[in-house]
Amino acid sequence: MTTTATTLKGQPLEKPVLDALLRRRMFYTPSFEIYNGVGGLYDYGPPGCALQTNIVDLWRKHFVLEEDMLEVDCTVLTPHEVLKTSGHVDKFADWMCKDPKNGDILRADHFVESVLEARLNGNKEARGQKVDEKDDPKKKKKKAKSEAVVLDDAVVAEYEEVLARIDNYDGPQLGELIKKYQLKNPDTGEMPSEPVQFNLMFQTSIGPSSNMRGYLRPETAQGQFLNFAKLLAFNQGQMPFASASIGKSYRNEISPRAGLLRVREFLMAEIEHFVDPQGGKKHSRFHEVEKVELVFLDRETQLSGKTETRKLAVGGAVKEGLVDNETLGYFLARIHLFLQKIGVDLTKMRFRQHMQNEMAHYACDCWDAELLTTSGWVECVGCADRSAYDLSVHAKKTGAPLVVRERLDEPITTTVWQVDIEKKKFGPQFKKDAKAVEDALLATTQEQRESMSRQLADTGKTTLEVAGVADGKVDIKSDSVKIEFRDKVENTKEYTPNVIEPSFGIGRILYALIEHNFWTRASDGGDEARGVLSFPPTVAPTKVLLVPLSSNPQFKPVVKKLSQTLRRLGVSSRVDDSSASIGKRYSRNDELGTPLGVTVDFQTLRDGTMTLRDRDSTTQVRAAEDKILLAIQSLVDGTKDWAAITSELPKFEGQEA
Amino acid sequence: MTTTATTLKGQPLEKPVLDALLRRRMFYTPSFEIYNGVGGLYDYGPPGCALQTNIVDLWRKHFVLEEDMLEVDCTVLTPHEVLKTSGHVDKFADWMCKDPKNGDILRADHFVESVLEARLNGNKEARGQKVDEKDDPKKKKKKAKSEAVVLDDAVVAEYEEVLARIDNYDGPQLGELIKKYQLKNPDTGEMPSEPVQFNLMFQTSIGPSSNMRGYLRPETAQGQFLNFAKLLAFNQGQMPFASASIGKSYRNEISPRAGLLRVREFLMAEIEHFVDPQGGKKHSRFHEVEKVELVFLDRETQLSGKTETRKLAVGGAVKEGLVDNETLGYFLARIHLFLQKIGVDLTKMRFRQHMQNEMAHYACDCWDAELLTTSGWVECVGCADRSAYDLSVHAKKTGAPLVVRERLDEPITTTVWQVDIEKKKFGPQFKKDAKAVEDALLATTQEQRESMSRQLADTGKTTLEVAGVADGKVDIKSDSVKIEFRDKVENTKEYTPNVIEPSFGIGRILYALIEHNFWTRASDGGDEARGVLSFPPTVAPTKVLLVPLSSNPQFKPVVKKLSQTLRRLGVSSRVDDSSASIGKRYSRNDELGTPLGVTVDFQTLRDGTMTLRDRDSTTQVRAAEDKILLAIQSLVDGTKDWAAITSELPKFEGQEA
Repeated sequence: MTTTATTLKGQPLEKPVLDALLRRRMFYTPSFEIYNGVGGLYDYGPPGCALQTNIVDLWRKHFVLEEDMLEVDCTVLTPHEVLKTSGHVDKFADWMCKDPKNGDILRADHFVESVLEARLNGNKEARGQKVDEKDDPKKKKKKAKSEAVVLDDAVVAEYEEVLARIDNYDGPQLGELIKKYQLKNPDTGEMPSEPVQFNLMFQTSIGPSSNMRGYLRPETAQGQFLNFAKLLAFNQGQMPFASASIGKSYRNEISPRAGLLRVREFLMAEIEHFVDPQGGKKHSRFHEVEKVELVFLDRETQLSGKTETRKLAVGGAVKEGLVDNETLGYFLARIHLFLQKIGVDLTKMRFRQHMQNEMAHYACDCWDAELLTTSGWVECVGCADRSAYDLSVHAKKTGAPLVVRERLDEPITTTVWQVDIEKKKFGPQFKKDAKAVEDALLATTQEQRESMSRQLADTGKTTLEVAGVADGKVDIKSDSVKIEFRDKVENTKEYTPNVIEPSFGIGRILYALIEHNFWTRASDGGDEARGVLSFPPTVAPTKVLLVPLSSNPQFKPVVKKLSQTLRRLGVSSRVDDSSASIGKRYSRNDELGTPLGVTVDFQTLRDGTMTLRDRDSTTQVRAAEDKILLAIQSLVDGTKDWAAITSELPKFEGQEA
Repeated sequence: MTTTATTLKGQPLEKPVLDALLRRRMFYTPSFEIYNGVGGLYDYGPPGCALQTNIVDLWRKHFVLEEDMLEVDCTVLTPHEVLKTSGHVDKFADWMCKDPKNGDILRADHFVESVLEARLNGNKEARGQKVDEKDDPKKKKKKAKSEAVVLDDAVVAEYEEVLARIDNYDGPQLGELIKKYQLKNPDTGEMPSEPVQFNLMFQTSIGPSSNMRGYLRPETAQGQFLNFAKLLAFNQGQMPFASASIGKSYRNEISPRAGLLRVREFLMAEIEHFVDPQGGKKHSRFHEVEKVELVFLDRETQLSGKTETRKLAVGGAVKEGLVDNETLGYFLARIHLFLQKIGVDLTKMRFRQHMQNEMAHYACDCWDAELLTTSGWVECVGCADRSAYDLSVHAKKTGAPLVVRERLDEPITTTVWQVDIEKKKFGPQFKKDAKAVEDALLATTQEQRESMSRQLADTGKTTLEVAGVADGKVDIKSDSVKIEFRDKVENTKEYTPNVIEPSFGIGRILYALIEHNFWTRASDGGDEARGVLSFPPTVAPTKVLLVPLSSNPQFKPVVKKLSQTLRRLGVSSRVDDSSASIGKRYSRNDELGTPLGVTVDFQTLRDGTMTLRDRDSTTQVRAAEDKILLAIQSLVDGTKDWAAITSELPKFEGQEA
């Protein structure tokens, strides 16, 4: 597969070289590898785990602490009923088909897409046209090999139309396409079976009696929705507010890819921002971000088959209606600022709007923050407007009042048809059914009331449908019920909040961040190029490498003390006192993304000075311990950069190989 | 249930009062409560979640960063084969029986225990003896109601013997006890069914074809073991070293208790310390902790039916053999120091040694750090010596070399029987079986070699058993094989490390911590007592409460700026600008465990001073903003206590109600 991806130094990004580095330095590794592994499951080794922890830590500061969000930690195990109500049991599924020969399971849409694309490429090859690796925003296709066969122009047009609408087909339609175009699995030459629906949730049963079906949650959101009433109370009834959650979610992918981009178990960080749908979803802090410029790829552009983006301040984007409202715009900008802070390459980031038919069943609008990787543009953060969908369905199912009741600053007066019941007469009239009749009466619409009122005035009675009472109809009489058109004063309003949901896939962000910070440096000795991961100090797995010049025992206490001091300062460091050359040891830590290195040498023993090395430039300064420590602190907390340090402390050119 | 638990002020600890506080302040809440909840599943609300995050954060600093442990993050989903090998599929189970009348599922050992104890208590009652609520180290029993019935002395002795050995019975034996003593479910009066084994792991299937069985991990340890070889390489081959992991684990408890003490989904933090079993498992930093005094409850004391503890420095405990080795002792002390740091009441902590029959299938020794709560002594941290069990079984199953190969400082010379094969002749003799015969030859024991050598010398040939070759026996001849007794020099040694595993149940620690820090304060107005949670500032969910005196808009910018400054300093704060009185607002935050409060009043607007309030004493000081901020910082990072602050800054007695 050719790729046009480049490193942050403009070099071609060679994925195999990066993959070898990540494996060698144990950033992540296939889970259960000594048992031959399981697709879509990865373990993070020490640097990957530290990188993940630092990203999560920054996320919590940037979002939760900055905005006083209410962080919760809900369970992964979720009973059937909850996910039935949320729509996941019925709709969180992909269509899959089976190869009759080798039993391979294929995701139906990916299969149709890949075979048709292979045919189109084969056609281009046969006609001597350039086969372009067009970037695929959804990265779904498993590549099928193309054969150089000329196709009719009409067929090409037909295939292209199918591909443009690939997200629109349901299973039976995909099955028809497979039959119509005789699409065969390139691995076996067989046509796969009729597509069947496969729910992506992992199922289990809870408790010893095996009769409580449950799932591993596919998102952290549901736990937040179910706790809405308690969270609102905790927030002392004040709106708007946001809850947040960081935790694992699970999707039983049909064919997970190699790597961290499509996995079955993954860490998510999700925010549910609850807002009054009335008043245009304004945000009180929107002015703080309105000048932030974002790169947009909107729905219309995509519909016209293009991928051109527009750079626009988020204030302007909301004004012109590209982004629906301030709250959505506020979070897009905050997402941008977060990704920038952790070290994402801003030239490899865009916000893509979901197509109407591509959105999850609960969403009414959605923008993805996509990051460009060697696998194309990858959705790393979704920012969806879930409207009142989830709170409404759960409230309806359980009867829990997942609503906000707010005192109105000014009472609202409306003139409406109102029902008055004289209980003393009404009760004896309906006896045990009185409550049911009353409920039915109060549930009538304005139109019904108007006509009932007329009948009562005309005939002294009217009929009302009441399910389960008598034959389903009862007589209402004017002696116990009055229906009048008159003023009604409301002091409170009640509404179901809408939800804006920024949802972060931490693993995908982590992987894209690695690619965005990877480059190679020609080695001094003319050996092969050495890899460097230029993470910002804030997210780097380890901040400082401590290297004694040699294994001389005199260095040990100095290094140990330094390491303790750094720990007290909250700066993570590692000692490498192996027998490798200093150059080799630095090189190893360049691959680990360690931004700073301190060398303790014989001069340190004499005068207490030590050298500090910058990973990216490999230049060094030399100074007394206290100055070096101050320099490290200011570099790690971001108050100074390396240029500032080199202007303050004397340069050193010495031991490094 | 009576309890003798007291608060840290010596008051009787009223659990219902505490429970109401925890519910009111949303520390945690039953998951899916609007769907009527699911037993054993709890969500953490904002203060519980922040408390958990702070405990985990301190844990990571205290263990992972302090000792350069290799933190990994492995998947929860685990394939069948791995847990089959580890022994969990066969042994990680409880015996359960079913009530034939109401279908209740009962844990067999708990059932037998509770009914026999009820009878013994009934006997005491009938004889007018005091029924003591003896503390139950394993907190397993569901209490059955006792009836005052006199028992024969012989029967009492028999019951007591059964109870003392309750952990020794397997399912069929428990079934016999139920029949023999006619044990009936007090809820129905029925004798439950024969016990059947119930595996405690949640099962699921991975992938679309449903044929890969998997489980949710019951512990984080297995992922660490499977990655051992990679971790050793990452550590540049150096031993000893430790890996660590923080993550969710799952146990499908038969009858989970109310509260956080026995749940089905829980956060664990586990360390696997890999050490050479030769040389007595010394620890290079043991001297740093040897004077730490621990409270021990050893195996012998428990065997004699007692619960008396001994306080002893860990150095002495290792010396006298109470604690098996330095590494185990080191971790016991480190666990003690960690629990002390987060605010556990040291008078409610002990280290209890597991009984031989009580240990998990993989452990050869185990000490639990137990914390005293209103539910008795609760195991919160286990510290087990898992020996080489796990690495050995996985290596055997997969063939992966989960061993350490170390260069010896000095070569070791031993005189042993050695086999020399002359390949040129040996190969043609055995042809395709040559490899199998060679393997069998090299696998012979020293004794076998000695006798084979004699036969070769005497008769020129000997026989060797080789499975699968010819009839299972082959002739070995002296022309191609020589067996000699001579010196062998070894430069490297190879061994399977032993594992010391400190394993922390974060939820249980969190709950015990809450109980240990709870007390009530008589309210000024003579209302009911108000709850206080005196968490140390380091773990407190929020460090500072900011309260403007009133809703006067002049206070808003001051409070906002203060809140931003604190955020920049990394100190979490919350603003309470509700209309409640200052006293009420402080009171709410005492319940949340917020250690400090800052009030902004009219004097602040005039001279920039503000008051700082200490949660535990409710005393206040008043000073300029910069001094207050410095005081907050030193209190939060633990460099000063409140006494020091009051000696530095002027006392204030003012607005508080």
